[in-house]
Amino acid sequence: MSPVLLSDLATEIIIPVCAVIGILFSLLQWLLVSKVKLTPQTNGSPSNNNKNGYNDSLIEEEEGVNEHNVVAKCAEIQTAISEGATSFLFTEYQYVGVFMVVFAILIFLFLGSVEGFSTKSKRCTYDITRMCKPALATALFSTASFVLGAITSVLSGFLGMKIATYANARTTLEARKGVGKAFIIAFRSGAVMGFLLAANGLLVLYITINLFKLYYGDDWEGLFEAITGYGLGGSSMALFGRVGGGIYTKAADVGADLVGKVERNIPEDDPRNPAVIADNVGDNVGDIAGMGSDLFGSYAESSCAALVVASISSFGINHEFTAMLYPLLVSSVGIIVCLITTLFATDFFEIKAVKDIEPALKNQLIISTVLMTVGIAIVSWIALPSSFTIFNFGEQKVVHNWQLFLCVCVGLWAGLIIGFVTEYYTSNAYSPVQDVADSCRTGAATNVIFGLALGYKSVIIPIFAIAIGIFVSFSFAAMYGIAVAALGMLSTIATGLAIDAYGPISDNAGGIAEMAGMSHRIRERTDALDAAGNTTAAIGKGFAIGSAALVSLALFGAFVSRAGIQVVDVLTPKVFIGLIVGAMLPYWFSAMTMKSVGSAALKMVEEVRRQFNTIPGLMEGTAKPDYATCVKISTDASIKEMIPPGALVMLTPLIVGIFFGVETLSGVLAGSLVSGVQVAISASNTGGAWDNAKKYIEAGASEHARTLGPKGSEPHKAAVIGDTIGDPLKDTSGPSLNILIKLMAVESLVFAPFFAAHGGLLFKL
Amino acid sequence: MSPVLLSDLATEIIIPVCAVIGILFSLLQWLLVSKVKLTPQTNGSPSNNNKNGYNDSLIEEEEGVNEHNVVAKCAEIQTAISEGATSFLFTEYQYVGVFMVVFAILIFLFLGSVEGFSTKSKRCTYDITRMCKPALATALFSTASFVLGAITSVLSGFLGMKIATYANARTTLEARKGVGKAFIIAFRSGAVMGFLLAANGLLVLYITINLFKLYYGDDWEGLFEAITGYGLGGSSMALFGRVGGGIYTKAADVGADLVGKVERNIPEDDPRNPAVIADNVGDNVGDIAGMGSDLFGSYAESSCAALVVASISSFGINHEFTAMLYPLLVSSVGIIVCLITTLFATDFFEIKAVKDIEPALKNQLIISTVLMTVGIAIVSWIALPSSFTIFNFGEQKVVHNWQLFLCVCVGLWAGLIIGFVTEYYTSNAYSPVQDVADSCRTGAATNVIFGLALGYKSVIIPIFAIAIGIFVSFSFAAMYGIAVAALGMLSTIATGLAIDAYGPISDNAGGIAEMAGMSHRIRERTDALDAAGNTTAAIGKGFAIGSAALVSLALFGAFVSRAGIQVVDVLTPKVFIGLIVGAMLPYWFSAMTMKSVGSAALKMVEEVRRQFNTIPGLMEGTAKPDYATCVKISTDASIKEMIPPGALVMLTPLIVGIFFGVETLSGVLAGSLVSGVQVAISASNTGGAWDNAKKYIEAGASEHARTLGPKGSEPHKAAVIGDTIGDPLKDTSGPSLNILIKLMAVESLVFAPFFAAHGGLLFKL
Repeated sequence: MSPVLLSDLATEIIIPVCAVIGILFSLLQWLLVSKVKLTPQTNGSPSNNNKNGYNDSLIEEEEGVNEHNVVAKCAEIQTAISEGATSFLFTEYQYVGVFMVVFAILIFLFLGSVEGFSTKSKRCTYDITRMCKPALATALFSTASFVLGAITSVLSGFLGMKIATYANARTTLEARKGVGKAFIIAFRSGAVMGFLLAANGLLVLYITINLFKLYYGDDWEGLFEAITGYGLGGSSMALFGRVGGGIYTKAADVGADLVGKVERNIPEDDPRNPAVIADNVGDNVGDIAGMGSDLFGSYAESSCAALVVASISSFGINHEFTAMLYPLLVSSVGIIVCLITTLFATDFFEIKAVKDIEPALKNQLIISTVLMTVGIAIVSWIALPSSFTIFNFGEQKVVHNWQLFLCVCVGLWAGLIIGFVTEYYTSNAYSPVQDVADSCRTGAATNVIFGLALGYKSVIIPIFAIAIGIFVSFSFAAMYGIAVAALGMLSTIATGLAIDAYGPISDNAGGIAEMAGMSHRIRERTDALDAAGNTTAAIGKGFAIGSAALVSLALFGAFVSRAGIQVVDVLTPKVFIGLIVGAMLPYWFSAMTMKSVGSAALKMVEEVRRQFNTIPGLMEGTAKPDYATCVKISTDASIKEMIPPGALVMLTPLIVGIFFGVETLSGVLAGSLVSGVQVAISASNTGGAWDNAKKYIEAGASEHARTLGPKGSEPHKAAVIGDTIGDPLKDTSGPSLNILIKLMAVESLVFAPFFAAHGGLLFKL
Repeated sequence: MSPVLLSDLATEIIIPVCAVIGILFSLLQWLLVSKVKLTPQTNGSPSNNNKNGYNDSLIEEEEGVNEHNVVAKCAEIQTAISEGATSFLFTEYQYVGVFMVVFAILIFLFLGSVEGFSTKSKRCTYDITRMCKPALATALFSTASFVLGAITSVLSGFLGMKIATYANARTTLEARKGVGKAFIIAFRSGAVMGFLLAANGLLVLYITINLFKLYYGDDWEGLFEAITGYGLGGSSMALFGRVGGGIYTKAADVGADLVGKVERNIPEDDPRNPAVIADNVGDNVGDIAGMGSDLFGSYAESSCAALVVASISSFGINHEFTAMLYPLLVSSVGIIVCLITTLFATDFFEIKAVKDIEPALKNQLIISTVLMTVGIAIVSWIALPSSFTIFNFGEQKVVHNWQLFLCVCVGLWAGLIIGFVTEYYTSNAYSPVQDVADSCRTGAATNVIFGLALGYKSVIIPIFAIAIGIFVSFSFAAMYGIAVAALGMLSTIATGLAIDAYGPISDNAGGIAEMAGMSHRIRERTDALDAAGNTTAAIGKGFAIGSAALVSLALFGAFVSRAGIQVVDVLTPKVFIGLIVGAMLPYWFSAMTMKSVGSAALKMVEEVRRQFNTIPGLMEGTAKPDYATCVKISTDASIKEMIPPGALVMLTPLIVGIFFGVETLSGVLAGSLVSGVQVAISASNTGGAWDNAKKYIEAGASEHARTLGPKGSEPHKAAVIGDTIGDPLKDTSGPSLNILIKLMAVESLVFAPFFAAHGGLLFKL
């Protein structure tokens, strides 16, 4: 084993420096966004570099730049959205705060009880010649890292929401100057969120490790086991964020559409619709805050999974600090790579027309992946010994640094493939969505049949990509390989989050343009941004699901190691019943969330109808609707309805572990993983395809699309129905499922010593 | 080990006698059905025992009994349907005949090549002190039993179709005399099919075993390995039957509804609709012939799985013939039990009103289950030694006869639970379907959201029932326990098929009433029969799926034993990638079948529209539509479109086995099993619920239902959309999936020696 090129001191410096660079870059982007003023200007400053494409359907013209009223109105709407979102998140955090405290106590009690709350040191599990810290310490530090992870996750979601609500009206105002300008603002705002979250997650994890090290010293096994609480905290908050936010946004969206678009025939986001503010608030609490927490959780968990496996491998046993922190170094390089990638979108090239938007976003994925491949090669070369051993279920497996490089790369490139496949199935530039749109000719039923078939079909290639990724990384470096493959997929998280957050920001910008009564042409520009945003949102979900699959497999592996299981044999009744029940859980969970959205939407419909019927002058625009009641309906529904699915996910590992033991729990984890991935991908893509099929008909950009339109035609009505059905699939059930699979895995990992010591009560009787 | 009470001679007599009794009973029922004359009678013979319920919404009155025209018209329509179905099945059989020959050759070549086509005897695998027949013999006999299974399956489907098309017009005519009379005819016809199939399957298997025994003599291992071909033949034909028939029926149904009900506003089954004959033909080739082949396949496979495990257990090693044939004895008793059960519906009680129909069908399930429990106890007591050993992946496990009794019972009762849960979620007498109907108030989108959520939710209890069944039977008697649990669930197959076939017969009866221009009241009666039929069809599908899950697990276990694998460890990359790809297959398969139905339906819509637009007088009823063109569209589409999904299922085990080897194949089987069960149950129940939500609104039997109706109201239109979407889910994708999971398992079992000898090429390189 050759020495590592990078010194420990250099590692100690590189990681925080990269994190700080990320935060500074994020602040710079924020500064650029803030230059768009939301206060009416006396001197309009029209830009001079207006290089319009002539053949574009949306000729860019500056218009209304100096209208004071419009600016004031945009500012007012933005404030309403921002206040609504802040108020909802605070309500939500009160409830999850209670959960957090209860669960923190539970972690401490369960883990503390493993050795009967003894304060005596014990023999290490994997290196029995040495002494490790007592189980009580692991209980205490796991609890602390759980709380820290939870707070960081909540903070990530909250900051993301703040940035998005800061940016949406600014995007609308920039849309007056052209689609290119608006794109840059929306994209920069996404970048603020992406870089802040990525850098923040890395920095907090790095500081925590260093602080814990003060106590743990040489006991790396104990240190990194305690760190797993960080992932659990991050993902449990993400679960409530995704589910609560998802129910909030879709109850409002479905309710608003069913009355506004279908019954009253008024446009989407029309200010006369009482649910319109709730709908826009929803985009920010669901798509932005929920997704921010989600991806932060994945990042935290894959780092934890890699670290805990590394701690019982040669890195941990020989105390190679630099090699140990390889996962964090990969993430650090990722921030720098994403920084360069961002410049390609904002500075090196320019968006001149609508048709440039999707390629620009796609190029972001390609550029970041190519650059990151080089970055991973460098890190693998300087931070790893040329060969080392990795713990592989009871034995040590020899791994070479180039093999680990391939593990990270296979994850990274699998992510790119998933992104491209998702784009193919959800963008209306390709035949799948166009076929779905075409099926609207014969009504909503065929639209739904084709949409469901599209979602099922879109699962095939991503699953093969994940399977190949798993096979390569598993074969080379066992569960450590899987964990770093997940990290590889998430290494470009800053760019991923930037293009993902871009979607809801554009969606909101369109809503604000409509509500502020801006011209048709501006709405067309924001719609074009939004159509690309639907695709990038689907891509973001694809990444989230793909990485969740890898992460939960890695966590599953770490759990199995920690629980002391050698084999998870499908041919034993204990494991098989776990497998089949685990495969059922995504359906149970989806049933709950879909039903919640449906019921909340029905309540919203009744309220919106009531307002249209009882408030005189509402349809004529002379009276203002009562937005607050609709906001309250969404808030109450989401808070109440997020508890049962949350309980299902959080309690299942505890109940199975305590009553049925670790073998059955292994089965449950494997079953929910292999089944949940499919449900999640198909739900996201079906929903995305329906949304864009509708947009395809509305935009009428091609001969074919025009035969189906215009708005209000029978095919368009059928498309609206599909879009509405897709809402809870793509924004509530689908994206929550990836949290289900990884959260159950990380929870099992944290509680593994308890289950191994006291679990399986039913079979013991 | 105590001796068995039942002598071998008695066993040799009991099994064929029970089978013959079943066939005779079936003929008796047929005779009773045939008493309803399809030739106009000069003297109407009104029955005298007309005990009507007074409070019922459908007061029974005899009407139009003597109308010659109506009878002649019914006879004419029945002939058209019967001829259409016969012609389609012959076309289908030509194609699957080619497949059968090719696959038979493949089986012979692959299995023959295991020992290089040597004709020398070899050492037995499990009892190496003895000599067994050469692999070439197994190849030859496997091929023969494959062909025999295929022919029996095809025959089962064909006979079922013939009976159903014989009975449908008779049911319509009896509906003139009252709902009770019509029910009896429909139910008796179902019983003809149920008993014929159950008895036929048993008899053919019994004769085959005895014939093979002439060659194999004492080599029971070889004999029962060769018998597995019977299951493969049965299920491969069932696959094409289900998929081809499913596409046929739903293309016609969806196409007919989209133009007829939605665009032209004419009733379902209106004779002016050009696709109406194709729709009714479809019910018989899809629901009847397909389902007959399917359940026959399950029965054959679970028997084969039990026999092959038994042959390498103490029964086989000690040559205990009676104990060996325990699975066949259970089925024999099942026929007698079902015979008694049938009398409860047809003779002991009488259906007086609509509200009696569902309880009568439900009682069939309860009575048969209770009686069968006694039957199983008796068989287990007299046909089994008090203790014996069962092969359990490399070791022999001691099992007591009462344990095996419990294994069979747990399967039987799990079936009852699945049946009841399915009824709860798909019958419009309970709140789930009523909630779905209620959600139609806000349009098709909420209807679809609630329907999907209902389907997902309906998975929970059946999965727990299956899991408990697996755990108990697996723990008691390893894979033999699972196989007999599956047999337990299928032991009342005659009753199950009877109530299942009752559904499409009633559906057709309604269609014929509409087409023959019979009165509104008669149509109401057949509609009431049909609503109960939707529920029983869903229950039948529930049984089919539940038993398929158990069967394929048993086959999987037999495959693993035969392939010589000791452990299927999820924590190896080979197995895990199999697991995740296997879990994807049901989605790939569903995408194909849904898309096929959608595309074929679009073609049907165009043709139906063309006819309405170009045939003068069609809407006025003065001109006849061109039924034949629509029949041709359905035929062509189903023949063409059944090939890709068929190829996916048939080729996957071969490709995986040859290139990736038996471990990965084990993963694929486990993955497709645990994932496919969920997709199948949720698809069937969602579709059943939508259909009955629509019927709930149409029937308007309660205050609540009337607020949603009548036909043509906005909520009703939304319900029709849901119903149309559910069609391919419940009648094409869903029921085909249970064939997918068991067919891949039985195919792997048949080819196991080949894969073990020559498979895994990719990893060998």
